[in-house]
Amino acid sequence: MSVTSDLASLLPGRVVTDPDVAAGYAVDAYPQAAPPASDDYTVVRARSRTDVEVTLRYAAEHGIPVVPQGSRTSTTGSAGALPGAIVLSTEQLTSIEIDPVERIAVVGPGVINTDLKAAAAEHGLAYPPDPASASMCSIGGNVATNAGGLCCVKYGVTADYVRGLEVVLPGGEVMRTGRRTAKGVAGLDLTGVFVGSEGTLGVVTEAVLRLVPLGDPPLTVLAVFPTLDATMAGVAALRGVRSTPSLVELLDGPSVDAVQAYGDYGFPSGSGGVLLVQSDRPGHAAEDVQEYAAALTAAGATEVAVAEDRAEADLLLEGRRVLNPALAARGPRFIEDVCVPVGRLGELVAQVHAIAARHGLEATCGGHAGDGNLHPCFFYDAEDPESLAAAQRAFDDLVRAAWALGGTLTGEHGVGAQKAPWLREELGEAELARQLAVKALFDPLGIMNPGRVYG
Amino acid sequence: MSVTSDLASLLPGRVVTDPDVAAGYAVDAYPQAAPPASDDYTVVRARSRTDVEVTLRYAAEHGIPVVPQGSRTSTTGSAGALPGAIVLSTEQLTSIEIDPVERIAVVGPGVINTDLKAAAAEHGLAYPPDPASASMCSIGGNVATNAGGLCCVKYGVTADYVRGLEVVLPGGEVMRTGRRTAKGVAGLDLTGVFVGSEGTLGVVTEAVLRLVPLGDPPLTVLAVFPTLDATMAGVAALRGVRSTPSLVELLDGPSVDAVQAYGDYGFPSGSGGVLLVQSDRPGHAAEDVQEYAAALTAAGATEVAVAEDRAEADLLLEGRRVLNPALAARGPRFIEDVCVPVGRLGELVAQVHAIAARHGLEATCGGHAGDGNLHPCFFYDAEDPESLAAAQRAFDDLVRAAWALGGTLTGEHGVGAQKAPWLREELGEAELARQLAVKALFDPLGIMNPGRVYG
Repeated sequence: MSVTSDLASLLPGRVVTDPDVAAGYAVDAYPQAAPPASDDYTVVRARSRTDVEVTLRYAAEHGIPVVPQGSRTSTTGSAGALPGAIVLSTEQLTSIEIDPVERIAVVGPGVINTDLKAAAAEHGLAYPPDPASASMCSIGGNVATNAGGLCCVKYGVTADYVRGLEVVLPGGEVMRTGRRTAKGVAGLDLTGVFVGSEGTLGVVTEAVLRLVPLGDPPLTVLAVFPTLDATMAGVAALRGVRSTPSLVELLDGPSVDAVQAYGDYGFPSGSGGVLLVQSDRPGHAAEDVQEYAAALTAAGATEVAVAEDRAEADLLLEGRRVLNPALAARGPRFIEDVCVPVGRLGELVAQVHAIAARHGLEATCGGHAGDGNLHPCFFYDAEDPESLAAAQRAFDDLVRAAWALGGTLTGEHGVGAQKAPWLREELGEAELARQLAVKALFDPLGIMNPGRVYG
Repeated sequence: MSVTSDLASLLPGRVVTDPDVAAGYAVDAYPQAAPPASDDYTVVRARSRTDVEVTLRYAAEHGIPVVPQGSRTSTTGSAGALPGAIVLSTEQLTSIEIDPVERIAVVGPGVINTDLKAAAAEHGLAYPPDPASASMCSIGGNVATNAGGLCCVKYGVTADYVRGLEVVLPGGEVMRTGRRTAKGVAGLDLTGVFVGSEGTLGVVTEAVLRLVPLGDPPLTVLAVFPTLDATMAGVAALRGVRSTPSLVELLDGPSVDAVQAYGDYGFPSGSGGVLLVQSDRPGHAAEDVQEYAAALTAAGATEVAVAEDRAEADLLLEGRRVLNPALAARGPRFIEDVCVPVGRLGELVAQVHAIAARHGLEATCGGHAGDGNLHPCFFYDAEDPESLAAAQRAFDDLVRAAWALGGTLTGEHGVGAQKAPWLREELGEAELARQLAVKALFDPLGIMNPGRVYG
């Protein structure tokens, strides 16, 4: 393949020539991924910004599509290889510079989320964004999808921590957005355009991230409810507590069953729903979880466990941490990522189960209840085209239900390949045209991650 | 004037026809403003989004420049009338809707900052951004300049609270950015492009703002230092305290003298500098201010006053609150707004006084020390062209000094008319061209606030 040999001579040692190794770059974590053959794309593993520049200059000169790739944890197919494309991996750009006085981190896109957390913690600082895949996912991917996670209810999303970016554009031009200083308003701040752009504009080669003082080790409350309605009353009750929890996670009954089938995490069977709630407030975590426990009991929880130390707190949360592998083990599924106003969450959960029943499917419903952002799953029989079609219809129904509740089809996973068919309807024609015009400013040839997001 | 009569017939009751009233819309708070004659522009006072649409449709059809205008508190001349322009005032768009469950406010651009704070407080919530002009400035203006203020050291700037916007573009098209939900990544988020765009792209007609739980009423420490170096050591010492202050304000000796000349606010004379530091941490404000006082004493403060109740805390801060009128009363001045890394703040302050001495000028240096964002002033004799020229040279020198320290020419006031000559140099030609291309997507005719920001 001439692209591979061209790039191998331009970037000696950076291009993957072993087809078995290249095959490892074919797909991300999108369950419905359809990978091209490993000789139908070229993998470049950049070791420096210059490597990215050279690759994007070559790609523009030859009109070759480019897929920026981090740790391949995307669940929507935004980072898998495309036929004829260059897969540009930033996994080796792993520099971390912590400035404790400015409370910023300057990092390469390949840095793993928890590695940054650990580096910040050495200075008594925290990088809060906390996707469930934190131990595997990279900052570049987090920026590309504006990743959320478990702590957003208190700390917000990735965009809330990105102060500035260095980006290489197709053609190889390097641009910088934002700032390193605490404030700055000289000209337009284009940072937010790149955060969540899913590799459709350019390749982030450095991020300046805001850090915050480290909270206390979190303590956990686990509350079991007899019904989903009571569980939702528990979520609402927490909105009335002044001290915002650092985590409010929901598992409905079928999610609990899936986790327990995966391993014994101590969840009771037959419940309507479980809430996991944490506080990390310095000096007050123990007091807060008692207050949360009281509020959840008053809301109708029939069983409430309060962790008294960190080990117990981690143990209680373990069942949530294994939810994704537990659901993957359960069978083929469509993963939703809808987000609605928190006040409409109960209606959303009711819709999930009504839609599943209507299509004769099994469903689970869990996720970030404190944000109104859930990851319902519709399970299907991969051997049965009817079952697959039913799951697709259920997926579509749920997106429409989220819209009707004032929500969006994606809270934090991004659009990728999976949700591109729905984006036009969510944005409307005028907004879609505007966004494509913005994209064309940065990627006039349309070579950046083509087909993703905009279809 | 035909524009005035055209608009008066299109928008009965919205157009100012009394020249004395129109004259009140001529200038903002830019000390060097040069207002056009009041019959050389047309003032439209919008009462609805429709009024804004009609005005911007007319403006585009006839190629008339438009100056969006809030409360005219801009210190850089971004909101004063332009000859031949339509001044589109949003001061009457003052709706406020607080949603305590979602913790958002949906507001019109004319809402005064402190009115929103008060409305949020009724629900136990806060809208933190806190410009010194909070009691006068509007949310539309805050969004237009990405306003900062006194609390940013803990709470960040306006951009950190804008979740979404409704904007009317030239031609009258209405667009929406961002979201109402806690998370959402469907397509590009263009919110950040509009925040800080100083009226050069469109007119914000509604903002969805994030609210946070209300802190405790703040308590205050006032610390007096013998030298500027010791004062800077005090700022550095506060970076080591885990509980971030909600305010860290600096007044150098000449600023203190200016305040005391304005009224007796209890500041000692002959000091090297004063720091005002606050905590609003629920349940811990009293403990925090004692910790700050100890750190400031250890850093070399010779006098430390700790407020024991809210009234005393407000009193201690009053001297900072009157700094701007006190400086305005002192005489004609150029107001700087440079922002540098906090670790370089001492060098910046030293530069201010060295530059003033070099040009034979008097200067004050005060502002948001916790953010590295200061508002040095160079005073001049308005009757003496030599003195004015010296102040202009000093202004230029200080911008360059800030750049050399890794900073920016504007932390929070924006570029406006005042700093447009420096923007090209800060951004560089390639970035300037890119920003103008982004502007052209929204404002292809170049009628929005022409001459401001980009010169």
